[in-house]
Amino acid sequence: MEQRVSLITLGVRDLGVARAFYEELGWRGQQVAETVFFQAGGQALVLWSREALAADGGVRDDDEGGFGGVALAHNVRSEAEVDAALDAAVVAGASLTRAAAPTSYGGYAGYFADPDGHLWEIAYNPGFPLDDAGNLTVPDLGEEP
Amino acid sequence: MEQRVSLITLGVRDLGVARAFYEELGWRGQQVAETVFFQAGGQALVLWSREALAADGGVRDDDEGGFGGVALAHNVRSEAEVDAALDAAVVAGASLTRAAAPTSYGGYAGYFADPDGHLWEIAYNPGFPLDDAGNLTVPDLGEEP
Repeated sequence: MEQRVSLITLGVRDLGVARAFYEELGWRGQQVAETVFFQAGGQALVLWSREALAADGGVRDDDEGGFGGVALAHNVRSEAEVDAALDAAVVAGASLTRAAAPTSYGGYAGYFADPDGHLWEIAYNPGFPLDDAGNLTVPDLGEEP
Repeated sequence: MEQRVSLITLGVRDLGVARAFYEELGWRGQQVAETVFFQAGGQALVLWSREALAADGGVRDDDEGGFGGVALAHNVRSEAEVDAALDAAVVAGASLTRAAAPTSYGGYAGYFADPDGHLWEIAYNPGFPLDDAGNLTVPDLGEEP
């Protein structure tokens, strides 16, 4: 198994509502049948029926969409960009779950939940460089042996 | 907001167990404090305490880790690679939640759940090309206007 993720699929209750949210944030996707695909660097973010996703994956969807133990992060290049992105998300209909604040690693970050409760962190982390295309590189973290 | 995802953080119950699972699959990461970072193309897959992630994101973790409405997909280049990757995941301790089978789009896919229940699809999709580096491109899907 190569070390990469090809798609991130977010299960949604109403595809139109979910797509409108991401389009409001400036993302542009393509819908085919009941699925929306957003190119995101070398991968795709996908919106699909939560019920269909659970069935496709062979799991039961027992709960009402509580915390799923996953967060996506969108890193930016300054504190001002964190504030701007969180503001834009709220305007688009997101819930601000944690207001932006300085982080333990010397950065600045906050979180919003999308209309289906999927958690996004907007972060400025000066230690994790972004290239011009927005690709993130994990630096040498000096892992303890 | 640019159209990209910087990090995918998976909340885990036991960091050592979770890291050992991904390392068994051939991934190589770096641990700093109580977090493991895996470079994955132009982004990072991160393992971190589920409790800490919920607290950091300002949400409550009410349930016991049921379906969170998210699936990650790892696309490969042949049906044989799908079978091999699912077999390797099971050997590493995953649960096979859906055995590999032909898909509606002319591909072949199955799913496993990692030790914390995070859902991964292993898929061969001849319509979504992968470059030599493994980057996926969403083709022109001929979206209805």
